[in-house]
Parts: sequence; C-alpha cells; structure tokens
Amino acid sequence: MLIHDLTADECRDVLRRAGLARLACERDGQPYVVPVHLWYDDDHNCLYGFSTVGQKVVWMRQNPRVCVEIDDIDDPNHWVTLVVFGAYEEIPDDAAGRTVRERARLLFEPRPEWWLPAAARMPSHERHATVVYRIRIDRVTGRRAARNRAQP
Amino acid sequence: MLIHDLTADECRDVLRRAGLARLACERDGQPYVVPVHLWYDDDHNCLYGFSTVGQKVVWMRQNPRVCVEIDDIDDPNHWVTLVVFGAYEEIPDDAAGRTVRERARLLFEPRPEWWLPAAARMPSHERHATVVYRIRIDRVTGRRAARNRAQP
Repeated sequence: MLIHDLTADECRDVLRRAGLARLACERDGQPYVVPVHLWYDDDHNCLYGFSTVGQKVVWMRQNPRVCVEIDDIDDPNHWVTLVVFGAYEEIPDDAAGRTVRERARLLFEPRPEWWLPAAARMPSHERHATVVYRIRIDRVTGRRAARNRAQP
Repeated sequence: MLIHDLTADECRDVLRRAGLARLACERDGQPYVVPVHLWYDDDHNCLYGFSTVGQKVVWMRQNPRVCVEIDDIDDPNHWVTLVVFGAYEEIPDDAAGRTVRERARLLFEPRPEWWLPAAARMPSHERHATVVYRIRIDRVTGRRAARNRAQP
C-alpha cells in the first residue's frame, strides 16, 4: 500500500467535493465531535455550515478553535482523508451578515436536503435559533492510500 | 422526519457493529479529529484501537479525554449517530498488559485488514512504535433519524 501526502491542489479538490464532514470542538479539555454538512467556499478559503443552537454551537462560541475531518473511504486500502484546522465564526443575522449569509445560501442551495432537516423539525417560532457559521481555514493536511486491488 | 434518542441497548447495538469511527482529542484548546478503527468490548464497556505513534497518540498521552463519533448515514433522512465520551488508556507492551492485548487481538482478528495497513507499511525494526489502546466509555448518546422514503 502506498500512502502519500496530498498537495495543496489535491486538498482543495477534496474540499470542493465535500459535504459530510466531522467537526470537532472542545471545552475545558473535553473534545466533542459530530457529523455536519459543510460547503467549501473556494474564493474565501472557508467552509460554511448551518446548525441549530445546540452543544457544539455553545462550545464553539466559547472556543472557536476547531478541527474538521473529511474523508472518502472505499475500503481499508483505498481512502483519502483531510484534516482541517480552523476557527469558528458565526455569521450575524443582521444587515452586517447579509452578504455572507447570501453567499452561504447560494452554496447550500444545490443540496438543500442536507441542511433542511435540522430546521424542518423545529417549530416555526423557534427557527430563529439556527445559525449560519463558517470555519476559516488555517491549515489543511491530507493523505491518500492506494493499493492495486489485484495485490494480496 | 422523526429523530429520536437511542436507548442504552440501541447504543450498544451500534457499538457492536462499529469499525470505522472518528476519534477526537485535544491539546491546549485545539481539537484534532481523525478516522480510526475501533472494536467494542461488550464485557468491559470499552473500545479497542491500534495505532502507530503519531500526533493523536502523543496528544492523548497528554490529555486522555476523548470523544468518539460512530455513525451509519444512508442519506440525509436516514441515519444513526453515536457520540461516546471516554478516556484513552494505552495497553503496556509488557507482562502486565498481556491479557488485555490478547483480548484486543481476538477482537481485531476477524477484520485484520482494518488494522494491518498501519503496521504493514512500517519497516520491521520500527514496529515496536505501534500501540494498542482502549477508550474506557464514560457516556454514550445516540440519535436516529427516519423518514418514510415515500414522503416528500
């Protein structure tokens, strides 16, 4: 099996295809990781997400340092995995945040099914308790494994 | 869509089927998350893993508090996700750790392909730089989403 580090271009390709990701945050030395759906904004080198206000949002408001893992695992010998270090930033639901929210909405739009459920299950009077956020990417590393399937 | 919390029994069922998981650790307020393969030990309520000595092992030696996320995602409306809070514990490669390592080996054995690559790519003189560890489970929460596929 060959394992090699991804180049910056290869990392960006994986980010562009991303949807499902795992987002890790921490509080008082306790890490917390959950599956989320994120969309990559190539021009601004960040990932956008949409969430109800639950534990992860509360924690990320306290400590914005996060880690995102994105992967594509076919089998134990054929996989790509990306680790992103970055900072959580909430987009305010006001005039100042309007441009950024609109940009995020355009990224979400082609795959609305991935973010609608979180909001859809809430009573309408609580829908304001959802946030749009972005992860500003500080550093990305990626690895790819491949082995000829004919090999033992 | 219906989302419901899993019972303790349902959580154990997911743990028993687990293999691929995402393990989050942290250092100095910076979370880190990577894909790993873990095997559940029902009798001892822990997860066993096998790893080369890299960043995650170094970090978990410093702060053993970890979070493991295990999921089974068919599509946005049909998924199960489990979040495990626990403590990292390295199994010593000596007489004291022998019984536990043997137990872990028996759990790994049915699916050797998932842990061999990590060791297989190392030169034989460096294979001692691998560790067997377990995550002692403190708390598990799980959720399941389901929607009739005929619904819009």
